[in-house]
Amino acid sequence: MKRWIEETFHPHWRVRLEADKVLHEVQTEHQHVVIFENATWGTVLILDGIFQLTTSDEFIYHEMMAHVPLMALDRPRRVLVVGGGDGGVLREVLKHPSVEKATLCEIDRSIIELSLKHYPQIAGGAFDDPRADIVIADGLRYVAGTAERFDAIIVDSSEPVGPSAVLHTPAFFADCKRALKPGGILVTQNGLPFFFPEQLAGTTGIFAGLFERCAPYLCTQPCYFGGPFALNWASDEA
Amino acid sequence: MKRWIEETFHPHWRVRLEADKVLHEVQTEHQHVVIFENATWGTVLILDGIFQLTTSDEFIYHEMMAHVPLMALDRPRRVLVVGGGDGGVLREVLKHPSVEKATLCEIDRSIIELSLKHYPQIAGGAFDDPRADIVIADGLRYVAGTAERFDAIIVDSSEPVGPSAVLHTPAFFADCKRALKPGGILVTQNGLPFFFPEQLAGTTGIFAGLFERCAPYLCTQPCYFGGPFALNWASDEA
Repeated sequence: MKRWIEETFHPHWRVRLEADKVLHEVQTEHQHVVIFENATWGTVLILDGIFQLTTSDEFIYHEMMAHVPLMALDRPRRVLVVGGGDGGVLREVLKHPSVEKATLCEIDRSIIELSLKHYPQIAGGAFDDPRADIVIADGLRYVAGTAERFDAIIVDSSEPVGPSAVLHTPAFFADCKRALKPGGILVTQNGLPFFFPEQLAGTTGIFAGLFERCAPYLCTQPCYFGGPFALNWASDEA
Repeated sequence: MKRWIEETFHPHWRVRLEADKVLHEVQTEHQHVVIFENATWGTVLILDGIFQLTTSDEFIYHEMMAHVPLMALDRPRRVLVVGGGDGGVLREVLKHPSVEKATLCEIDRSIIELSLKHYPQIAGGAFDDPRADIVIADGLRYVAGTAERFDAIIVDSSEPVGPSAVLHTPAFFADCKRALKPGGILVTQNGLPFFFPEQLAGTTGIFAGLFERCAPYLCTQPCYFGGPFALNWASDEA
């Protein structure tokens, strides 16, 4: 009997994927982690009952998180990724030859280790790039305390529940603004607006209060059931 | 205990929706029909184990099917909808004041009756519009036999299994071309290309062989799990 693994995030609907093989299942200090293989979707990561990524469609999210802000900048040199322990955003950031240093701040070291073990193709060698600077720390504290200034900060958080909740607050985004160079760009994931419009409206309101300009942008992430997936960006420069 | 109703279309993944109330469940001459209420999605129609529509997101599909071709035409007067027994495409077609007659050809009378009983807001009175011409017939035979010529033909079929399979064939699309006025536009739904690229490629190939121009276009239909939803259009006019 194959096991079916179900997303438990939504009260009235569920997505279930067939697990040909469960590669890993553990409760870490921070979250409940399941990694498994599915015949259609590839290798799948689920955290605290929410589908996070699959190897078949991760490129969409990671490309949209990295290239939209970096292509809007003139030769970005310093980039900070908050979260993103799978290395997918880092991989895309490092494709920009102007980038001299890309810092990835991940709270949960085990996510990096599990990613490199079970789907190393997502990082694609990014962690070994000499320009990659890996920090295991609470993103909130790191951003509040860093003296560095970044051309872009990309917040690759999970949904605003559990350890990621603090990465959706006004205090955190204000610290991000302080850690940006003048004209730098802040990008965050922003949920599924068809069913959670308040999440997109909330972040847009925070961004509008902090920055001169902000705008949501959309992609369709096949593994997130429930309509288009929103990202949101902010900057003080036109 | 509430019942969970599951989409059985895909072998390795499933979407399940909680049914607060099953409004209707029957095996008709043509297909297995379930209509139920869900707290998040509204009223839901499932045919032969495939989610067809929900009252919360049907507007996306119906607007994209109707307005993209009709806005590309100069004052379209005659429109044919093949399938679409819920009346949603017809509703949007009739919003165009230039339309003098809109024929809807539905094979299964019970779909129209069930739609008007359980989610009349989708038709929104379209069946009572004096410009609406309702034909209960096999769409394949109707298009092959009609002497009328249309500015636009909109094929609101379900997936290429069961009674809708014939609405995805070269013979049917060739008959559609014959039933179009010069410069008329043919539109069809075309599945989820992220997982079924062969479906989009197949129809595009058929269209390219029949018409001067064709192009897929995309929307994101929240109730269809698995990425963007494709539509496809064809015309002999630029």
